[in-house]
Amino acid sequence: MKKNLIKDLENLVGKDKIFSHIEDRFCYAYDATNNFYLPDAVVIPKSTEDVVKVVRYANQNKIPVVSRGLGSGYTGGSVPIKGGIVVSLEQMNKILEINKEKKYGIVESGVIASDFADEVKKEGLYYPPDPTSLEYSTLGGNVAECAGGLRGRKYGTTKNYVLGLEFVLSEGEVIKTGLLSSLDDDLYDLEGLLIASEGTLGIITKIAFRLTPLPSYSETVLAGFDRMEDAAQVVSDITKAGIVPSALEFIDGDTLDCVLEYISVDFVQKSDAVLLIEPEGEKDEVQKEMEMVRKICEKNNAKSIKSAETEDEKEKLWEVRRASSGALLRLAPTKVNEDVCVPPSQLPNLVKGLKKIGQDYRVTINTFGHAGDGNLHVNIMCDRTNSEQMERVDQAVEKLFDLTLKLGGTLSGEHGIGITKSKFLENEVGKLGIELMKKIKKAFDPQGILNPGKIFI
Amino acid sequence: MKKNLIKDLENLVGKDKIFSHIEDRFCYAYDATNNFYLPDAVVIPKSTEDVVKVVRYANQNKIPVVSRGLGSGYTGGSVPIKGGIVVSLEQMNKILEINKEKKYGIVESGVIASDFADEVKKEGLYYPPDPTSLEYSTLGGNVAECAGGLRGRKYGTTKNYVLGLEFVLSEGEVIKTGLLSSLDDDLYDLEGLLIASEGTLGIITKIAFRLTPLPSYSETVLAGFDRMEDAAQVVSDITKAGIVPSALEFIDGDTLDCVLEYISVDFVQKSDAVLLIEPEGEKDEVQKEMEMVRKICEKNNAKSIKSAETEDEKEKLWEVRRASSGALLRLAPTKVNEDVCVPPSQLPNLVKGLKKIGQDYRVTINTFGHAGDGNLHVNIMCDRTNSEQMERVDQAVEKLFDLTLKLGGTLSGEHGIGITKSKFLENEVGKLGIELMKKIKKAFDPQGILNPGKIFI
Repeated sequence: MKKNLIKDLENLVGKDKIFSHIEDRFCYAYDATNNFYLPDAVVIPKSTEDVVKVVRYANQNKIPVVSRGLGSGYTGGSVPIKGGIVVSLEQMNKILEINKEKKYGIVESGVIASDFADEVKKEGLYYPPDPTSLEYSTLGGNVAECAGGLRGRKYGTTKNYVLGLEFVLSEGEVIKTGLLSSLDDDLYDLEGLLIASEGTLGIITKIAFRLTPLPSYSETVLAGFDRMEDAAQVVSDITKAGIVPSALEFIDGDTLDCVLEYISVDFVQKSDAVLLIEPEGEKDEVQKEMEMVRKICEKNNAKSIKSAETEDEKEKLWEVRRASSGALLRLAPTKVNEDVCVPPSQLPNLVKGLKKIGQDYRVTINTFGHAGDGNLHVNIMCDRTNSEQMERVDQAVEKLFDLTLKLGGTLSGEHGIGITKSKFLENEVGKLGIELMKKIKKAFDPQGILNPGKIFI
Repeated sequence: MKKNLIKDLENLVGKDKIFSHIEDRFCYAYDATNNFYLPDAVVIPKSTEDVVKVVRYANQNKIPVVSRGLGSGYTGGSVPIKGGIVVSLEQMNKILEINKEKKYGIVESGVIASDFADEVKKEGLYYPPDPTSLEYSTLGGNVAECAGGLRGRKYGTTKNYVLGLEFVLSEGEVIKTGLLSSLDDDLYDLEGLLIASEGTLGIITKIAFRLTPLPSYSETVLAGFDRMEDAAQVVSDITKAGIVPSALEFIDGDTLDCVLEYISVDFVQKSDAVLLIEPEGEKDEVQKEMEMVRKICEKNNAKSIKSAETEDEKEKLWEVRRASSGALLRLAPTKVNEDVCVPPSQLPNLVKGLKKIGQDYRVTINTFGHAGDGNLHVNIMCDRTNSEQMERVDQAVEKLFDLTLKLGGTLSGEHGIGITKSKFLENEVGKLGIELMKKIKKAFDPQGILNPGKIFI
């Protein structure tokens, strides 16, 4: 650790924006992966200028700088594995503008996703991306990891909504793109490069988002099946019929059991697989689509089809899906959550393969996720204090990644690469792809101070 | 020119793929800007391997390599301003796959845009991007310049359809992204960086495109107005009403006059401004939208509203718009076509400003374009053999760009930067943006052999 680090930072941005005590730094040492690395100092900037000062100082002194939203990530993206300074954007949380006529919003990057979505709704507009973490993840983090969400099938992921960025480069320069400047779309796409770059190319300080008209009508249905294969066939049939629901979510039977013990929803039956399906748009169109969805479910042996009849019931059905992640912690204290993506037609093979992996390595695997995109969250339930078991979990994860690539899939649907997946990356993009990305990293950050040790090893 | 250049190239890829005679090289010296620079040699590769061999050789010998589709560009992007080798992808024109179920197509980059769109249609699918040049521009060129098109308002531009690229780097490595590899979306977005990079970062050899279901129904209307302000208000009202037609095109009165002299369409009246509006989608939805569009036109003093009643009439209405570009050449032998983009609400100010520029510099200005996106093609009609006049044209263009930036617009809606706009670029993106882009360029192409002299000066 650099001598006088804390004093230097205090002089730069003010004492009230620095945490130096170990109790405080502790809170910025982890994310949802349970990886733990203590930073040497934490800065809570209030403005882009604060970020500039800190980054410039860090670059002069070759100190790692790791930007952080609220630490909800599943791949260690915001964990300071080489120590240094954590820049936590939690207090850069102002919504700067919502433009109703031109349908865009401008925020500081520390705004919580659901806070923004709620404000936007008040203006009669819609911000569709909705990662499961939307109530405890920041928009800056959503952009840096390119978060997806339950509605991704119809509306796309975070990147489809970015209209402009402000970000701080490793030498302290501030770049503005898109709506936040007059930077032309028709040039090298700096904005696209920053999205999903996990804080390794720059620190995002402001974001402009595209907003859409609020859909006028939606219907929600939860369909239960005795066989996963039937549920997978429904996904495939819906796609083939040209229907694009805003959500097409899958939960496996064991996960559903956990959820039903956790929240009480008397109109949902136990099943081996359930799909949550929500068409959204103009009323007549939605009703027509819903009828087709029902027929497809019936044809594929659905044992129950529950439509929400009131707003309250709709909320309950969504609660089943949103509670899946948390409810699993009833099974075991540690959840190793891997996020893989396969072509939707390969879903049955993925689930079959998962069963075998679970048996081979004697681990409990629960899955749920965005079936319509072939994006599943695979949760291995375990206890990280049991090192023998954790070894088997590691082996199971390795097999899961092999299987995913074999099925023509990718290793990260929406959680990023971070540290937990970087050793598998070369299998996927090849040596040349990695070399090229490293050259880009070097062009942006010649001294390698921005979130070092991430994405590449 | 390097000694033995022709012989070396012949040895590398075969004599039949090389043009060395001046008559042949002549054909690869220009694009639609009328800029003229003779290449030292022209290579017509038949495969990615041919491209690799040529690029590797060029890099070893520091010879410029300029990739080219069919030279329909409006900014000199494919003109070899530093001589060297033109790699013309015209014979890499195979459609490799159209996947009906998964809705994608894979092509070599020399396929003509309309050839692809036609084949796709035969499979009941839709490739929406439709630059005016679609019948004589290649998909590789469309991607390299990020071409827009008449339907851009509803469906987005070329970049919204790219699912994967294969491209050759300056040192001859081949990189594959997206559908063409298992490269993850969640990494640095190399694909996005290549789109609109105008051949300066790599030579695109294959492309995977997303396809959509063919819309089942559309209606087309041409509305005439006595005042441009009324037409602009219609654009703004349609946007506010939440209606997204697949086309919302503008033609000014003088241009319409030229068109009507050129093609005979008895049911179109002379007007000071016309809008071509085409809602597309499900039948009831389209009919509802069309009714709203009619009402908005009436409210804003439309003097004529002509709906197409047959497929033939629809084709005729489209012909009016598509003929705009060519018909103007009846006015003067040279057309300086600038492509600017302003917020749609600023269209009236842009048109007002154009009138003043025309008067101040005594030049004839005709405009048409994608009004819904605020993207207008501004054509200054002149004679390039008249150097006194051309000086005034240059001054007028400079004023046009100043005006565009003042109105919060950008200098290139869809034609790229190339050479004709590069001197204005710094006004727009600032010194820092350009520095960063140059670093990226250097990371990709350390010797600067790929399309040198473009984008940056």
